[in-house]
Amino acid sequence: MKDILFFKNKNYLIQNLFPKIKFKKNILIKGVKPLLTASKNDITIFDSNRYISDAHKTRALYCITTDELSKQLPKKIEKIIVKNVLFELALILKKIYPSADIDHLDETLKLSKKRRFISVKFGNNVLIGNGVKIGKKTSIGSNTIIEHDVNIGSNCVIGSNVIIKNSIIGNNVVIQDNNKIGQKGFGFIPMKNKNIKFPHIGKVIIYDEVEIASGCTIDRGSIDNTSIGKNTYLDNQVHIAHNVKIGSNCMIAGQVGFAGSSTIGSNVSIGGQAGISGHLNIGNNVKICGGSGVIKDIEDNQVIMGYPAVSFKKFIKNWKK
Amino acid sequence: MKDILFFKNKNYLIQNLFPKIKFKKNILIKGVKPLLTASKNDITIFDSNRYISDAHKTRALYCITTDELSKQLPKKIEKIIVKNVLFELALILKKIYPSADIDHLDETLKLSKKRRFISVKFGNNVLIGNGVKIGKKTSIGSNTIIEHDVNIGSNCVIGSNVIIKNSIIGNNVVIQDNNKIGQKGFGFIPMKNKNIKFPHIGKVIIYDEVEIASGCTIDRGSIDNTSIGKNTYLDNQVHIAHNVKIGSNCMIAGQVGFAGSSTIGSNVSIGGQAGISGHLNIGNNVKICGGSGVIKDIEDNQVIMGYPAVSFKKFIKNWKK
Amino acid sequence: MKDILFFKNKNYLIQNLFPKIKFKKNILIKGVKPLLTASKNDITIFDSNRYISDAHKTRALYCITTDELSKQLPKKIEKIIVKNVLFELALILKKIYPSADIDHLDETLKLSKKRRFISVKFGNNVLIGNGVKIGKKTSIGSNTIIEHDVNIGSNCVIGSNVIIKNSIIGNNVVIQDNNKIGQKGFGFIPMKNKNIKFPHIGKVIIYDEVEIASGCTIDRGSIDNTSIGKNTYLDNQVHIAHNVKIGSNCMIAGQVGFAGSSTIGSNVSIGGQAGISGHLNIGNNVKICGGSGVIKDIEDNQVIMGYPAVSFKKFIKNWKK
Repeated sequence: MKDILFFKNKNYLIQNLFPKIKFKKNILIKGVKPLLTASKNDITIFDSNRYISDAHKTRALYCITTDELSKQLPKKIEKIIVKNVLFELALILKKIYPSADIDHLDETLKLSKKRRFISVKFGNNVLIGNGVKIGKKTSIGSNTIIEHDVNIGSNCVIGSNVIIKNSIIGNNVVIQDNNKIGQKGFGFIPMKNKNIKFPHIGKVIIYDEVEIASGCTIDRGSIDNTSIGKNTYLDNQVHIAHNVKIGSNCMIAGQVGFAGSSTIGSNVSIGGQAGISGHLNIGNNVKICGGSGVIKDIEDNQVIMGYPAVSFKKFIKNWKK
Repeated sequence: MKDILFFKNKNYLIQNLFPKIKFKKNILIKGVKPLLTASKNDITIFDSNRYISDAHKTRALYCITTDELSKQLPKKIEKIIVKNVLFELALILKKIYPSADIDHLDETLKLSKKRRFISVKFGNNVLIGNGVKIGKKTSIGSNTIIEHDVNIGSNCVIGSNVIIKNSIIGNNVVIQDNNKIGQKGFGFIPMKNKNIKFPHIGKVIIYDEVEIASGCTIDRGSIDNTSIGKNTYLDNQVHIAHNVKIGSNCMIAGQVGFAGSSTIGSNVSIGGQAGISGHLNIGNNVKICGGSGVIKDIEDNQVIMGYPAVSFKKFIKNWKK
Repeated sequence: MKDILFFKNKNYLIQNLFPKIKFKKNILIKGVKPLLTASKNDITIFDSNRYISDAHKTRALYCITTDELSKQLPKKIEKIIVKNVLFELALILKKIYPSADIDHLDETLKLSKKRRFISVKFGNNVLIGNGVKIGKKTSIGSNTIIEHDVNIGSNCVIGSNVIIKNSIIGNNVVIQDNNKIGQKGFGFIPMKNKNIKFPHIGKVIIYDEVEIASGCTIDRGSIDNTSIGKNTYLDNQVHIAHNVKIGSNCMIAGQVGFAGSSTIGSNVSIGGQAGISGHLNIGNNVKICGGSGVIKDIEDNQVIMGYPAVSFKKFIKNWKK
């Protein structure tokens, strides 16, 4: 999939962003990205030992981090040492992407009949923003809103009362009624009386053959992306927070919730109302029973249940006591 | 209530559907129905011993089943022996009802002012499909979509941003804002790279005096129906999967979820965020405490709590330990 | 915030409402309010010892209560003794506020272009009721419905497909897509075949700087109000039942549910999918871990987890066993 920038960046020289730090070179910053996807002209962050292997692979030359974590970063990286990485990141993002912290009205929206698409079917009162691309044989239900620059593949069926923004959607995807995809996630720096809203510049990427039932909310990434792998199916009222990455061929039952930044493998099945905490790695071929609360990493091929979720065997053993 | 067919069937002779099997008579198949409601000209299925008593009562002459289960079926029934009943059923349904596996755009929708109803009040931008019937003194809020052939009784109050399809709704029913009723359920045959979508040809039936709060999702039945009994009240964000049958005079609190094909008795009260697994029988006068996870059948008059839910007494005893 | 009456009361003399009781004076009743906010001309209720301290502070002269509870009320109050307080209350409310028991179609709604607001931005197909006030620099997304007499402050961002009724909203509030705010709560007197719907005459009050993500449902109060304190942030799919009061600077993660009439302090953080039972007091600076089920009052500064939720220490100790 071709990359799309939903938020335009303002141009800053690195020295102007951090005037108190003396940099070797004063280059023009392109954007802000996570360790693995950052290029040389991006700023990245390193805020937890969880991401140490990514830190060794990064191509970024500028990294916001803490004094302690900075020692683990490769030498070539210029460290921007701060006390609170996310706080500093929020301020920098707000400078570079001033409008990404609130989902403002898309003033480019027009009724579909005022747009030109080839062999796309529209219901009534469909609103389409500037720069939207929709593939052939796709249909879009009534009262649905597709905001600026969203890409939708061919042969998709999008239902009614759906809102899609900041998203790239593959081919043969079915999205039933009333889904909200690509809105700003639940990220902010808590401050008394007036929190600092964390700008969310990421996307939602939905791969081919995905099916999403009704009433789901899928937040876009903060500086990373949120993604749903090929042929993964979501039931009704599923909540997917920012930066969550779900593999392919997964089954996610009704009312499941994912907190932010967790990564789910492929061929994973998750029963109804289960909850997955943030920043976890769930392996491939994992089965999570309905109602479970997962609060730690899970290796491949496990069957888990309970709150906190443990192996199914252990759960049954404890329960029979 | 009069029966309504939301999906037109294609005409097939039984012999053409299953060319490898030799049938006594080559009759025209009318449809596909569950054991209890099938007529002689319907195909039915028998895929679990749970339904053995239904199997003995069925009037169907054709039944898709496994080799092992087939021995328990009455002699008069012609057995269609397969390895995977649901897989075979999905293929047959797709042949007979080619468009029931995806909720396609209803191209018959028109603004309510272009329709004729007697003493029905409409908000703005209400869309109504062909063949819709709405009783007197019913009102329908703005941006609501009532798809083709839906029947709504008299003296109902339907809120705004509601989508109703494949449903029959009684009298004096209140449906608040933003409910999605009658969409395709979460049913498919998992296949690598491209699942087989299970056609859902059933309905949602909502009986008189029901009240449904906001943001609920009620999926239509697969080959059976989903139903909500007289004077049952649902709170916000309740999720009801395909084929669930809820009795009368029940109270279902907020964010409760029902997995597919469970049957709930009458006078049942279910506390907030409780989850009911699939294919269960919950008796009459049962009280399920909030947050419980029910994973086995419950007899009449029980009070249960916990995950997995046990009797309230047992729960309190275990907890105090 | 100035008080607004969303439901007009019919004028009744106290003696006409309760003809079987002999009152000292036959005054004109202004309305029905909870103990603490009732004025002399209001009727109030006292139905549980939980509210004994409020009962001693009330200015109301008329109180519906039971024989037993009546003995604890101050002498000056005229007691209206009944067997079932809520049943009697429902009947009285229905007399005084005949239309508050069902959310009827707002027939005053008009497209925003037919209304006059100064420096407010509107998307497409925005519907606004009579008497709505919207502050400067506020924007309102497409297909959103703001029903009669709602007040919205300045510099707010209201998303698309939002429905707001019976609500007062402060300044700098962000409400993302698809929220339903101010609808009737889940309150009724269970009766065989036809429940008595409890009229809900309260409001939703949302204070300055609040942010609400997508797909939330916030019910208005029954005779009290539902409120969300300054700078409190809600994630997606949160359910807030009638009369819940949430303090300031709280963080409520995705899919959390609040049953009716609970009071939450300030600086409280609640993890995803947690549930809070009805009529509880949760203190300040409380941290409730994700997935917890809270069924009793919690003092200030506690960290709690589990179902039923206990102190975090106790939870970990029990779990390690």
